[in-house]
Amino acid sequence: MTPASSGDTFRLACELISRPSVTPDDCGCLDLIAARLTPLGFRFERIDGGGVCNLWARRGETEPVLCFAGHTDVVPAGPLEGWDSPPFEPTVRGGQLFGRGAADMKTSLAAFVTGIERFVAAHPHHAGSIALLLTSDEEGIARHGTVKVVEALAARGERLDYCVVGEPTSVNTLGDTIKNGRRGSLSGTLRVKGVQGHVAYPQLARNPIHEFAPALAELASIRWDEGNEFFPPTTWQVSNIHAGTGANNVIPGTCEVLFNFRFASVSSADELRQRTHAVLDRHGLDYELDWHLSGKPFVTARGKLVEALSDAIRDTAGVETELSTSGGTSDGRFIADICSEVVEFGPVNATIHKVNESVVLDAIEPLSAIYERTLNALLPPNRD
Amino acid sequence: MTPASSGDTFRLACELISRPSVTPDDCGCLDLIAARLTPLGFRFERIDGGGVCNLWARRGETEPVLCFAGHTDVVPAGPLEGWDSPPFEPTVRGGQLFGRGAADMKTSLAAFVTGIERFVAAHPHHAGSIALLLTSDEEGIARHGTVKVVEALAARGERLDYCVVGEPTSVNTLGDTIKNGRRGSLSGTLRVKGVQGHVAYPQLARNPIHEFAPALAELASIRWDEGNEFFPPTTWQVSNIHAGTGANNVIPGTCEVLFNFRFASVSSADELRQRTHAVLDRHGLDYELDWHLSGKPFVTARGKLVEALSDAIRDTAGVETELSTSGGTSDGRFIADICSEVVEFGPVNATIHKVNESVVLDAIEPLSAIYERTLNALLPPNRD
Repeated sequence: MTPASSGDTFRLACELISRPSVTPDDCGCLDLIAARLTPLGFRFERIDGGGVCNLWARRGETEPVLCFAGHTDVVPAGPLEGWDSPPFEPTVRGGQLFGRGAADMKTSLAAFVTGIERFVAAHPHHAGSIALLLTSDEEGIARHGTVKVVEALAARGERLDYCVVGEPTSVNTLGDTIKNGRRGSLSGTLRVKGVQGHVAYPQLARNPIHEFAPALAELASIRWDEGNEFFPPTTWQVSNIHAGTGANNVIPGTCEVLFNFRFASVSSADELRQRTHAVLDRHGLDYELDWHLSGKPFVTARGKLVEALSDAIRDTAGVETELSTSGGTSDGRFIADICSEVVEFGPVNATIHKVNESVVLDAIEPLSAIYERTLNALLPPNRD
Repeated sequence: MTPASSGDTFRLACELISRPSVTPDDCGCLDLIAARLTPLGFRFERIDGGGVCNLWARRGETEPVLCFAGHTDVVPAGPLEGWDSPPFEPTVRGGQLFGRGAADMKTSLAAFVTGIERFVAAHPHHAGSIALLLTSDEEGIARHGTVKVVEALAARGERLDYCVVGEPTSVNTLGDTIKNGRRGSLSGTLRVKGVQGHVAYPQLARNPIHEFAPALAELASIRWDEGNEFFPPTTWQVSNIHAGTGANNVIPGTCEVLFNFRFASVSSADELRQRTHAVLDRHGLDYELDWHLSGKPFVTARGKLVEALSDAIRDTAGVETELSTSGGTSDGRFIADICSEVVEFGPVNATIHKVNESVVLDAIEPLSAIYERTLNALLPPNRD
């Protein structure tokens, strides 16, 4: 067996980690990947803009389309003195590969490439098409990243059948968890308006804190929905509330509130907006409310993709995988618009966004094998 | 008749205004006043401390004791470019005397002195005692001012029968309003404690904003009392509420709230504290609450003092005075502890704490005459 630190996937992961591609810098990662895929017969499309680099690559013209999606950007290294080795010098120590992006998600990118290489070498006439959708802005505001590629594909009617996003979803060991969906995230910035005045003369003022209180209590007590088999019930949380300048003798003129819905696929963003406005209006508040939908929910039920990936994990790593929809948002929210089955799967996420980010060496080549087996299952060699 | 700008009271007011006695600096004002009262047979006591100067002066050993109370300190001048003449150069313009302290309350101090001078000259054997209680810290934190003199008097069992505080209580014209009481002021600093967490996992956190909301709504809706003939109902107002660091994905661990009661004499500070705690406890909150009682309420019903002062105003200025308990706190809150009848009366307060603070020239000598007539009424010449 190939030693863990001499495999193709390990070497490519190291090459990617050595590029300090902090959001939105790609630092040539996409070129490196494209150079590996060119000999395999992929055609490429760069959809760059807003300082962000995006790559769409496809091999084959027919359906089904199995797409691997991910990002070359990484979060900043943070305090260098916290790292035991330089964050952009991939370093092996104690059975792990250390470096910013080792887990999130350059090892996944390397595993995509080597898995595809072996699959195409073995089955040059596979069914359907293999695709890659890569961006250099997933960790940032994500306004010019995956969403732009999805828009371009949608505009010309190009759809995907299956998509595996390489996010680090494993919790304790490679393969224990795949994400088959994510809740949506809808934020509101609310300004409740009153009339400023002296606390000794409240009859000349209107206290926006007092006026908002009953509406706040009601919103906090609402059970927005019951969730479903994939999602817990929708939640509403106030993250910030601010009113007053510090003086204890002044009734403030405005109360500013930031809140956030994490919502299941049983509620729509529009419904949640309307129900929020209904409560505020019923309480007779004078307010301004700006909404920001940072992600619609998506969910992929058990089907061909979940089955193929679960089988590949079991066959490679001997692990029974669990489905989860927990956590924040991911680029899966965009891809779901043009793809009926989207899941996320990658290495253990315990160290992501931290100092000394790492991936277990013994998980690197198995990850590539899992992606390869998934290709085998969903794009079987033509039998003709 | 003496022209308004050449009277004794006017001249003494100018001398006082020319001393920039910004809190807690007295700038020799008390010495100036004491020098005027010495020939009249007053005995003096300086109760200085904490950078604050306090003067207790008394003429006579018998009862009743009529005390004039006030402060030599003034609030800062504010932006000099806003003043049409230098704030500490008393200046006559358009029938008014301009300068910081002209209305609040150096003209009152001068009127105390000249009123007493004339009264003592005419009635050296008046009944009872005349007293002055003056401080250089009324506009500041007031921790070392009038309260210290009151404590010293109380410690030796010295009580007052009547007290006129020279605060500028007139609204439109000299004499239209005297204050026969003030509401109390009780402040609370509340910290509601929760458990910080990610908004995507509210089940792992406790949101102190949400937990506080129903208690806040209840506190804001409580009618604490009905007030009485002198006071409007007690009010409770939140002046500040703060929780969250700005990030929209974090449930904050603490919600900090500043609130203030302005309370009528029908509720006690202890009752209000207990009722507040009862609401917070009933809602099961984990909280810390620090209280600060900055002033107990006091009220002086119609009686000898109100009658004497109202008569003096009517006889001098031809004005029917109204009683009021509105506005913030004053040193009357301290004096009420050792004096059963306390009122406040002084010039029009329209310009106090503002640039171009002023007093109407034609009100200066009448103010002195009103204080003199009050002495006449309450400490009549011995008939023996």
